[in-house]
Order: sequence, then structure tokens, then C-alpha cells
Amino acid sequence: MAGRERRCARAVIEYDGTAFAGSQYQPNARTVQGELEAALNRLTGERVRIALAGRTDAGVHATGQVAAFCIARRRRGEGFSWPQLQQRLNALLPHDLAVRALRAAPAGFDPRRDAVARVYRYRIRMGGRRGPLDRHRTLEIGDRPDVAAMRAAAAAIPGDRDFAALGSDAHGRTVRHLSEVAVLRRGDLVEVRVTGDAFLRRMVRSIVAILLEVGRGRLTATDVADLLAAPTRALDGRAAPARGLTLERVIYSKTGHNHGRADAIGQAERDIER
Amino acid sequence: MAGRERRCARAVIEYDGTAFAGSQYQPNARTVQGELEAALNRLTGERVRIALAGRTDAGVHATGQVAAFCIARRRRGEGFSWPQLQQRLNALLPHDLAVRALRAAPAGFDPRRDAVARVYRYRIRMGGRRGPLDRHRTLEIGDRPDVAAMRAAAAAIPGDRDFAALGSDAHGRTVRHLSEVAVLRRGDLVEVRVTGDAFLRRMVRSIVAILLEVGRGRLTATDVADLLAAPTRALDGRAAPARGLTLERVIYSKTGHNHGRADAIGQAERDIER
Repeated sequence: MAGRERRCARAVIEYDGTAFAGSQYQPNARTVQGELEAALNRLTGERVRIALAGRTDAGVHATGQVAAFCIARRRRGEGFSWPQLQQRLNALLPHDLAVRALRAAPAGFDPRRDAVARVYRYRIRMGGRRGPLDRHRTLEIGDRPDVAAMRAAAAAIPGDRDFAALGSDAHGRTVRHLSEVAVLRRGDLVEVRVTGDAFLRRMVRSIVAILLEVGRGRLTATDVADLLAAPTRALDGRAAPARGLTLERVIYSKTGHNHGRADAIGQAERDIER
Repeated sequence: MAGRERRCARAVIEYDGTAFAGSQYQPNARTVQGELEAALNRLTGERVRIALAGRTDAGVHATGQVAAFCIARRRRGEGFSWPQLQQRLNALLPHDLAVRALRAAPAGFDPRRDAVARVYRYRIRMGGRRGPLDRHRTLEIGDRPDVAAMRAAAAAIPGDRDFAALGSDAHGRTVRHLSEVAVLRRGDLVEVRVTGDAFLRRMVRSIVAILLEVGRGRLTATDVADLLAAPTRALDGRAAPARGLTLERVIYSKTGHNHGRADAIGQAERDIER
């Protein structure tokens, strides 16, 4: 994508997913990709296409989604620096979507393929407690699941496995590497943090649904082990609601690539127009 | 208010002020008091009146507002415990208003008069940075005020003084005791935390407006000192927007009273119906 006539950016994106039909472009719905592209097109007069690191469903939020796009290189004095572009984009974007950071992308950067890990966080407020100021990003439940039981079950989930029981993949490839499923608690707020190389569709919300079933005594640790051992869509439809889920961070290797093409990146970093 | 036929509660209230015309009852507007009283009336069949510790303007939020009210004591088996009442209230209240805690009030408890201090927090995101997930509770500004200058000016504000320059009082009594004006910073987020015994109308937002003027080089520390020394409404109308402000906490003495009637309180605490 990078070349003499184009320069490419990597952006960290935050959004409140409540009013989005998801991250990926859809012709007749409000999406993160659609709004970002509309703002970029308006700013540049080009038909810019963006790529996103992670596909988030309708209602799912992000504080650290990553987007990449390329725009035409302007003549000196006509273009804008990346900080200027970030500022102008933020002035155009709707109030539930913002660019938190923007800089030159390494040459050939692919935000989805080059990511080495993604971190999601799911927020649950227990015991009928309510939090009006963050209700848009929290699942509020009336009961009090057993958090210690949830934690014990969570510890058995990570690993390299076929996670077909927990989600779907457009290409039917359902093996993933999960490095962490942590259950954190602060008072009535329970957070499930899940880190993995990549995720199936609805996978984090399925994990949360299973952990809640464990916490409510409706599933045992053995049930969870059986479920993971038998990769059928046993939990189809039993995903926790989208509102509690946030894509928190996408991690790239230090070089910015899985492939470690440090030279190309150094070049790209020097390539920023100022 | 407390007696054989009535029992009184003290509640900690959280609300997202965005869609409220303020905390105090108004006949033709949506208010915190109005919604709380409507829910209580529906639950009890009584005409319950509540009192609030602090008066917050339209658009101002709270995580620790305090409310007090009394309801009729029922016959054994017909009433509800305070935890039950809290749960039922939360089930009835709109999603931008919740009861975080509810327990028996000390006898004669007045949430406004008995408070010994109130803590407000004002959130500002600088430099054109935006935060979609907490935009409803943050002022977003395009420039970067000098935070060190704001902090220096803030340090000179606390004390016992006539704060007439910074707000109004229905009875014209404008002397207050401010114990702290702190300017905290985490990256692009600046928070102004103000603690005092009581506040004039728009006082915290006026302080924030002044500190922003200082940070922008439009007022000096001397100007601020002059302003505080000359108690006229010099800043009338120059208050920072409501959306950034949250009433975080109302502090009572350990006994729950300014007056320290420990015996009455012990009685009230034992007086909870279970």
C-alpha cells in the first residue's frame, strides 16, 4: 500500500459502541468503518478505505481499536502532518467515535494480520447494584455469582485449542491461542479480561456467559472442560450482552510487525511529513 | 421526623445529570428529586418528600449525592428492610439514576445541614483529545492550558472567605470555607477537585473557569487574588460547562451529625426493620 504517491497511517480508535451496528462497513447501517471513511473522504477528497484490527459486533465498545489507511501524498505545503490530520478528523467525527493517536504506519502494515494479541475486557456489576455514569459499558445483573468459582473455571480456559464451542469463524478455522482469562473484582464490579492472539466471533461474550453459568452453579468446572474438549457449537446464542464488552488494546510486536521487518518500519517512521 | 410511626433513611445516590434539569424538584421538568419521589411514592403508596445534601444544576452529575426521606412504619411482615427497599427502588428508577447505598438515618438527620464537607470533581480533556466513552462527564477543549500555572493559582484559593465573586446564594450569605482546590493530571486528562464545607451556586464551575483562564495566560495569580479580595460578581456567567462536574462525596462527622448526638444515632441504627 505504501509508495511514493501514498502515505499510510496507523490510528488508535475509541468508540462508544451503543449506537453502532458494529465496526465493519455495512451499506445501510451506522458503522465505525463507515463513519471513519466518511470523515477521511470529506477531509481528503479521496475515496479512502480503512482496515481495522478487530471486528467488533453491534454494541461492543473499544478504547484501543487499531485502524490503518493510506492517503495521497500532497505537494509540500498542501498536506497535513499526522497530528493535524488527527485533530481535523476528531473535529469531523461524531461524538461517540474518536482518534486517540495517529502516526505513520510501518510499510505494508496490516492491522489485523500483524497484531500479535488482542485484549478485551468485560464489565459486570452484581447484586442489583447500578452505576448510571457507566451503565452504557457495563452489564448489570441482579444476583451475585460466586466469583471464586468463576476465577477457578477461567484459569482452565487458556491454551492452544479448537474453540469452536465458543464462537464461529467465517472460514471454519477455529483454533486460537488464548493466553489469559482473568476474573478481577472491585466491590460489586467484576471484570473478565481475556487476552489472545485472535478471537472467534462472539468468543469473549461466550466465555463470559460460561463463567456466569459457573458462578451461578449451573455449570461445573468439569462441564467447562468437557465443553472445551468437544468443539461443537454447544453454547450457540448463549453469549453475554454486547454492552459489557470493550476491545481494550491490540498489541503488535516491538517492530510493529509479526514479521519483524525493522528496516521497512524505520523507513516509514522517517517518512512522516511535517 | 423520626418517631414511632415513621422510619427514616439516608441514601447515597448516583446520577448521570445529562438528561436532568437539576437535582431539585421543579413542577414541569425532569429532576433527580422528582424521579426519586415518584419511585418512592409508587413503592409505598405515600407522598414521600426527599431532601438532598447538595443542589446540583442541570447537567451536573453525582456519584455520592446524599438523600434523606421518611416512610411510614408498616406492621411486621408488611414492610421491607432497607436492602429490599434499595433493590425495589433501583428496579423502578430510570437508568440514569440509582441508589448506591441505603440505610437507616440517625434521628433528625438533615443531609444538607449535617454535612461537614462536600467534594466535587471537574474533568477536562485537553489538546483536542476526545474520549467517547466518558464524553458525557468530561469537558473536551482544543487547547492545552498550562497545568502548572493552574495548580499554582488553585493553591491560593482555599480558606475562609467571602466567595461572592464566584457564585450566588439565595440568602446573600456568601462566606464559605474551602479546604482544597487540587489540580490533578493524568496525560491529557486534567481534574480539578474542590473540597469545602458548602458551596455557592455555580461556585465550582466558576473556579474551574478561572483556573482555565490562568492556564491560558488570560489571568495571572495576582488577578485571581484581586478577584477573591473583591467580592463582587465579577465572573458572572463565566462558569465552566456543567457536563464536566460531578458531586463525588458528601462527608458527615463520624457520628453522622454535626452535633454529635451519638446516642440518638445508635438508637436509629438499631431501629432498622428486618
